[in-house]
Amino acid sequence: MSETTFAKGLEGVIADESKVCYIDGDKGLLSYRGYEISDLAKNSNFGETAWLLLFGRLPKQSELDEFNKRLVAGRKLPAPIVDALKALPKDTHPMVALQTGVAIHGGINPVDGGPGEENVNRAVEMIAIFPSIVAAWARIREGKDVVEARDDLGHGQNFLYMLNNEVPDEEVGHIFDVCLILHMEHSFNASTFAGRVVASTLAPLDAALAAAVGALYGPLHGGANEGVLDMLEDVPSAEEAPAWLDAALERKERIMGMGHRVYRAKDPRSIVLEDYLKRLSEKQGDSFNYDRLKAIEKRMAEVMEAKGKPIYPNVDFFSGSLYRLLGIDVAEFTSIFAIARVVGWVSHIVEQWEDNRIFRPKALYNGNHELSWKPMDERS
Amino acid sequence: MSETTFAKGLEGVIADESKVCYIDGDKGLLSYRGYEISDLAKNSNFGETAWLLLFGRLPKQSELDEFNKRLVAGRKLPAPIVDALKALPKDTHPMVALQTGVAIHGGINPVDGGPGEENVNRAVEMIAIFPSIVAAWARIREGKDVVEARDDLGHGQNFLYMLNNEVPDEEVGHIFDVCLILHMEHSFNASTFAGRVVASTLAPLDAALAAAVGALYGPLHGGANEGVLDMLEDVPSAEEAPAWLDAALERKERIMGMGHRVYRAKDPRSIVLEDYLKRLSEKQGDSFNYDRLKAIEKRMAEVMEAKGKPIYPNVDFFSGSLYRLLGIDVAEFTSIFAIARVVGWVSHIVEQWEDNRIFRPKALYNGNHELSWKPMDERS
Repeated sequence: MSETTFAKGLEGVIADESKVCYIDGDKGLLSYRGYEISDLAKNSNFGETAWLLLFGRLPKQSELDEFNKRLVAGRKLPAPIVDALKALPKDTHPMVALQTGVAIHGGINPVDGGPGEENVNRAVEMIAIFPSIVAAWARIREGKDVVEARDDLGHGQNFLYMLNNEVPDEEVGHIFDVCLILHMEHSFNASTFAGRVVASTLAPLDAALAAAVGALYGPLHGGANEGVLDMLEDVPSAEEAPAWLDAALERKERIMGMGHRVYRAKDPRSIVLEDYLKRLSEKQGDSFNYDRLKAIEKRMAEVMEAKGKPIYPNVDFFSGSLYRLLGIDVAEFTSIFAIARVVGWVSHIVEQWEDNRIFRPKALYNGNHELSWKPMDERS
Repeated sequence: MSETTFAKGLEGVIADESKVCYIDGDKGLLSYRGYEISDLAKNSNFGETAWLLLFGRLPKQSELDEFNKRLVAGRKLPAPIVDALKALPKDTHPMVALQTGVAIHGGINPVDGGPGEENVNRAVEMIAIFPSIVAAWARIREGKDVVEARDDLGHGQNFLYMLNNEVPDEEVGHIFDVCLILHMEHSFNASTFAGRVVASTLAPLDAALAAAVGALYGPLHGGANEGVLDMLEDVPSAEEAPAWLDAALERKERIMGMGHRVYRAKDPRSIVLEDYLKRLSEKQGDSFNYDRLKAIEKRMAEVMEAKGKPIYPNVDFFSGSLYRLLGIDVAEFTSIFAIARVVGWVSHIVEQWEDNRIFRPKALYNGNHELSWKPMDERS
């Protein structure tokens, strides 16, 4: 690009190298460290995929055991975080509470930003503590007691237990872990990029993660699966979905959960989520959301393919409905995204610090030049 | 740039247009909305320059009066922030406490991110509240009572009062306001850029500012003036400064407060700061720091000009010593930077939202492809 052109939103601009995640939007391919997301969703588990993202290869049994032990040990919430959460107004958004908790964590056994093992350890601590902050706030804001983590439950299972004070069955825990795996990482999205920008100043990991949480809070980024459920409120039935969609498109409304800046094919994560939503809908005898979503997807494909502009479901299209069947309140959706994505964030920040340069792009200045200050009475 | 080249740290890459601030590094020129920084430092005041940055022109008297009233009204710290600060470990870094306080503010009368007057008002609230958070934590961490803001003092004067529970004389208040003006804005530095990236998701202003605070915390960004004072510890006297510098350069040590990615001339802010440091040093009869700094600058110029690589003092070179003469503890330096820079941050975020596009650059993937998950016992 020349001196005076730029790509709005840095679209298509390479910001750095990375080995963490590969996306081929045309093929609908997403891989973590070389492993396709569908392969990991089918065969792996939370701890193993988190280890893979952070360290770059599949762990040995002893490495995974050690890692899982540290994830369990890191679940306990320090008192200053609990006390501060209790001081928040009760209608504080879960993402504000999470950003607060993560910021406060920076004051507990602080570690300077930069390369080295100490921050890899800090990364594991952060992966471990995110679910505890989210669950604690979900309880506190409803006036309930905070549920202490258990050390005999899996990562997702323990989160759901802390959230509801009830141990979910293993299948539910497994499905939730798969949801977390699917959301762990997605290259230089806005939150990951924000985290890397902050980390590039050698700010501590906690401070960089608080920034990433802030970005994920944005409705253009992490809030979209709530939007899909809002949208479904207006769709009376699967049978009426095509007519509803045609009318919405006529009104030029944005259809939530459809399309993605990166993918020109069906988002590979949505394929896995759809499958789990179908299975859980059948098991629970409640396929109202699933049927309406599939009817919207089918009609959307017909309409857009006729226009030569195919558009497909993204990761948000099915996830909200699946979370609902898992018994999770819609208010928690974005913070659950954060519980997953923190794995990608820390993997990227650790990578950033291995070969760091502070981010300081240029602005194309298009404002005034050479003005002179005037006293108040000479201003027009 | 081609598909496979990139500029590390986005150096030289245009990230967006902006009308807020213009820098000509070769000429040593910095202007806010078209007004040179030296002009504003000489003639303007905190409220007026903040208004200029936020709204794009010099205010009329009635506009400035209204703005200053709102800055005063916004000084009062909400109880949840005070309570949360009291819950922090006492050795929490001031920037961690500030990030926490700013994050919490997002839960108090929340405003969605995006264009419009509501967020311009929020911006004014944030400029007003930053000093109160910083001063409150400075008191709390030392076990002192929080000092409530006064509404009859100027912006900088009130901050110093809240910090020390003592009203500083007007000259000190004025010098401090000038320091704040000098630090208010500097185009797409890492913290401002981080704030714009977070805001581009339409996250709330508070969440984006918490990200910017996190970036400023980094020693490569906001922490450098502390480094200059640390460095001076090793310089016994002005007379011995040249020999000290030669030895430090010989050891290939980085000389703090010297050089800037942007400026190839003397940073125009350092010229103003040097002048105030000189005057206050004379007034207080303590020119130990000033004399050593000038000796280092002089020797540095000789050495580097001989090499054909001239290098000059940046904004951090004189500011720390000036803050010390103003009675400010070194631990507060970076958070004072934040009290000033918040004006630039909110001006940029308001601009970002006027024509927003989410930041989502590309990564140049250089990792593995097409690996297949293997059971544990088949891993090498």
